[in-house]
Amino acid sequence: MSTDRLIYMPLGGAGEIGMNAYVYGYGPAGKERLIVVDLGVAFPDMDTSPGVDLIFPDIAWLAERADRLDGIFVTHAHEDHVGAVGHLWHRLRAPVHCRPFTANIATRKMEEQGAPSDKVRIAQVWPEQVKAGPFSVGFLPMSHSIPETSALVIDTPAGRIVHTGDFKLDRTPLVGDPFEPAAWEEVSKDGVLALVCDSTNVFSPHAGRSESVLGPDITALVQGAPGMVVATTFASNVARVKTLAEAGVAAGRSVVLLGRAMQRMVRAAEETGVMDDFPSTVPVEEAGSIPRENLMLIVTGSQGERRAASAQLARGKYLGLEMKEGDLFLFSSKTIPGNERGVLRIINAFSEKGVDVVDDSSGLYHVSGHANRPDLEAMHDLVKPQFVVPMHGEHRHLREHAKLAEARGRTGVLAPNGTMVELSGNAPRVVEYVETGRTYLDGSVQIGALDGVVRDRLRMALNGHVMINVLMDEQDEPLGEPWCEAMGLPTKGRSGTPLTEVIEADLDQLMGRADDDVLVDDDKLTEAIRRVVRNTANGEIGRKPEVTVVISRLTD
Amino acid sequence: MSTDRLIYMPLGGAGEIGMNAYVYGYGPAGKERLIVVDLGVAFPDMDTSPGVDLIFPDIAWLAERADRLDGIFVTHAHEDHVGAVGHLWHRLRAPVHCRPFTANIATRKMEEQGAPSDKVRIAQVWPEQVKAGPFSVGFLPMSHSIPETSALVIDTPAGRIVHTGDFKLDRTPLVGDPFEPAAWEEVSKDGVLALVCDSTNVFSPHAGRSESVLGPDITALVQGAPGMVVATTFASNVARVKTLAEAGVAAGRSVVLLGRAMQRMVRAAEETGVMDDFPSTVPVEEAGSIPRENLMLIVTGSQGERRAASAQLARGKYLGLEMKEGDLFLFSSKTIPGNERGVLRIINAFSEKGVDVVDDSSGLYHVSGHANRPDLEAMHDLVKPQFVVPMHGEHRHLREHAKLAEARGRTGVLAPNGTMVELSGNAPRVVEYVETGRTYLDGSVQIGALDGVVRDRLRMALNGHVMINVLMDEQDEPLGEPWCEAMGLPTKGRSGTPLTEVIEADLDQLMGRADDDVLVDDDKLTEAIRRVVRNTANGEIGRKPEVTVVISRLTD
Repeated sequence: MSTDRLIYMPLGGAGEIGMNAYVYGYGPAGKERLIVVDLGVAFPDMDTSPGVDLIFPDIAWLAERADRLDGIFVTHAHEDHVGAVGHLWHRLRAPVHCRPFTANIATRKMEEQGAPSDKVRIAQVWPEQVKAGPFSVGFLPMSHSIPETSALVIDTPAGRIVHTGDFKLDRTPLVGDPFEPAAWEEVSKDGVLALVCDSTNVFSPHAGRSESVLGPDITALVQGAPGMVVATTFASNVARVKTLAEAGVAAGRSVVLLGRAMQRMVRAAEETGVMDDFPSTVPVEEAGSIPRENLMLIVTGSQGERRAASAQLARGKYLGLEMKEGDLFLFSSKTIPGNERGVLRIINAFSEKGVDVVDDSSGLYHVSGHANRPDLEAMHDLVKPQFVVPMHGEHRHLREHAKLAEARGRTGVLAPNGTMVELSGNAPRVVEYVETGRTYLDGSVQIGALDGVVRDRLRMALNGHVMINVLMDEQDEPLGEPWCEAMGLPTKGRSGTPLTEVIEADLDQLMGRADDDVLVDDDKLTEAIRRVVRNTANGEIGRKPEVTVVISRLTD
Repeated sequence: MSTDRLIYMPLGGAGEIGMNAYVYGYGPAGKERLIVVDLGVAFPDMDTSPGVDLIFPDIAWLAERADRLDGIFVTHAHEDHVGAVGHLWHRLRAPVHCRPFTANIATRKMEEQGAPSDKVRIAQVWPEQVKAGPFSVGFLPMSHSIPETSALVIDTPAGRIVHTGDFKLDRTPLVGDPFEPAAWEEVSKDGVLALVCDSTNVFSPHAGRSESVLGPDITALVQGAPGMVVATTFASNVARVKTLAEAGVAAGRSVVLLGRAMQRMVRAAEETGVMDDFPSTVPVEEAGSIPRENLMLIVTGSQGERRAASAQLARGKYLGLEMKEGDLFLFSSKTIPGNERGVLRIINAFSEKGVDVVDDSSGLYHVSGHANRPDLEAMHDLVKPQFVVPMHGEHRHLREHAKLAEARGRTGVLAPNGTMVELSGNAPRVVEYVETGRTYLDGSVQIGALDGVVRDRLRMALNGHVMINVLMDEQDEPLGEPWCEAMGLPTKGRSGTPLTEVIEADLDQLMGRADDDVLVDDDKLTEAIRRVVRNTANGEIGRKPEVTVVISRLTD
């Protein structure tokens, strides 16, 4: 009797929309051979991660077992699926399998981090499969909002898993692979153990719409615009970029791609052959000599990112271009929750310039790249799995998706990050909870989210920072008065005297009355100083700051 | 010939939704007698104002002319209209006019800030008017999402202004005043010069719905819930709180009000007689002994505020109560843009507990308190003003509202904060731009938004903070090695040696090779140290921190 088991465990992506990383294992308990699907990033925000550059899933569990890892499989080239490949590869050192367009992006990410780009292996599509230990993994072309997205058909000795990756049911995606029901039927006909399934849009009640519906409305909008037209979308949504460019051309406009990501993605799509008929564009240097009513810019920054082209145009002149009264700015995109403030800042800045802003609220100029609730139901019915395992979502999405499966007579498996589920038994069973979390790329250093670094930043941001310097002579007596510097605090408070002076005076009194056993002991003295600073500040400005104390002692 | 003029100038509220303050003046140019309508607050966020407690409009212009101010008029008791009355009164010192419910709230705000509460004057409703210099101001009862909201009928020698305040067209608001078209017709029949009008919902295309439509759906939801029901809404929306409480009673549940604001608002509504039939409630201390399926909590925290009752319940036990699998949490509210992250944090925390969360997305459990686009059109047509002056909105709302007025044949006046518009000429005319902005309440101190305090906090949060201590002897030679402390930075970087040690070593080298003219000059030495610290940190951790340098010099 075999004691081998099949396990599934998300390290990221099942608890947030972002930083996807899903582990599968097969073999004897604790000795399973492993693969991981996707290694993505999430993005920081001021509320929880100020100063952080990127967020990775904490892969400590997997890195400790790297000798058992037989492959890294990347479903598509969105940052939340491929963004961490270069940064984390050194700790995993397994081959990275993906299709050509994704490989183009992944290779650059490997090179940027000094990882060997020859470890990126180009996979053929289903019915070809990549062998990786006990797993055979096939790339099943699927529609999404970036070219060459794949679902993975993962065959194991315990049965077949279908891992959807991100997807929508689009038979006419314009660029990239369409949804082909026949291929999915073929994959599913002999029985699927588990459907591990995108949950992003489980709360969207209506069936999703095809990318191809947008062309006429976008074209009509651009044709009706009297001045310059600027449109933004995710650069990786190459189909949309093409639709926008074609609308510009149809309106007799010269098209300019603005922002590095925009140019890079279009080039990658052309280089890898996923797109071959992108309209000709004009370099930005030539745009200045074209009448504005004959111009259409397609720019980065659909999420209000401060350094992207859209934000630069909102602030003023950018690369010689400037938006003016009567121009039109189109968000052919949806604002991701959490980015509202940045996007509204841009919209209001444009409003001040007299620019008309059009967004997705009419439904005419954007469609989602993810399967909505009825599409998820259709997918369940198409694959007919024994278990539905929701992934790619916050906890509320996973739970709702599992409930949806259960309500329709299937077994739903709620498995947030760190939940190791055995899929090979009679019923899915949680066999272990693994510590998971986030790692930050902070400048050039990877730090743990709980290392205290970011906590200290948040404290300084919320409370301000006071630094105290005390000089002690060879007899452990204060030499001169304590010195106070403050950063991020009001200069004066209740008394009208500068805060630092009030603190220095109070500390001088403290030093005068402190017992010898305090004066000779750095810890006790630091604590006494800290208490005085916080109390004095609280009395003066109604706030207890962070305090750093440095005691310098002269020695004989 | 009279040289008197009538002016309008927003100091806050026309450029954001929040911190409303609208000035009107009449008299010779530069010597107008003044009134101000509303003195509200806005709320801080981590992106722009970490650590700040409240945001006020910068009233410097008005405070310098306080001798010409004849009255402060408060339309209703929402924080963005009344919240700054106590904090700013000392700089204005004029009587505060409002109706009884608003006065109840305003009086507490005055008392909390040591302002004389007898300056709060209770106004009678239209057709009574309050005389204030050349102005006669009438309080016209209007429907909104808080009791006793008023539009102001402001009569001036140059004509009548109707200042809507916040409003919706609700003939059955359950608590507080209904919209009475006949009264508005009466006010408007002899001609209105300017309609200064709420713009919040100008982008909402469908006519607004009455507060009274929600009762049956909320009641059905509560009746169908198997476990404990917890509902949140703005505490000041007393009508909604009552609807929720009545739904609880109809379902045979004991109702508990949780959160200080919730109890305070219900009490204020009862004390001032605007509500007299609120269902009886149970103190939270007794809730523990009631079976959870017989309990309904109505709690604060609809915007995800970290300290409010909803967030406390999401984190765990609160006042002995805890949410469990099968319980229901209802957001009978809309998430204000910018608050999404906090609200989603709570929803996901509830999801982890197995609590079902229902929000406003179905449209069944919340209606807005503001007039939608068709309601604004109806208001324009009812009042038939010569000019429509949009207020209460971000720039995009004001601009859209002005365009709406123009498209329908009226003169729209786009006047964001600081724009002084003369309304008494043949056509509205901008006569001056006044410097406006924000003031922060920071702990107990009022500081300017541009004072640099918050900028320093943001810099520390984004870059971390390094503090350097250098001790110089009587001959201006370094005494010992420089000392480095770091806060909010990774402890180690590229070299694997602690960052502070690497910095200290590099600074030691600097001190060894520095010329005498640098060593004796605090400014030059500080600059040289700062440069080394930033370069070294950049090499080690890829980040240039904020640097504070303290040089202590021993003297003979």
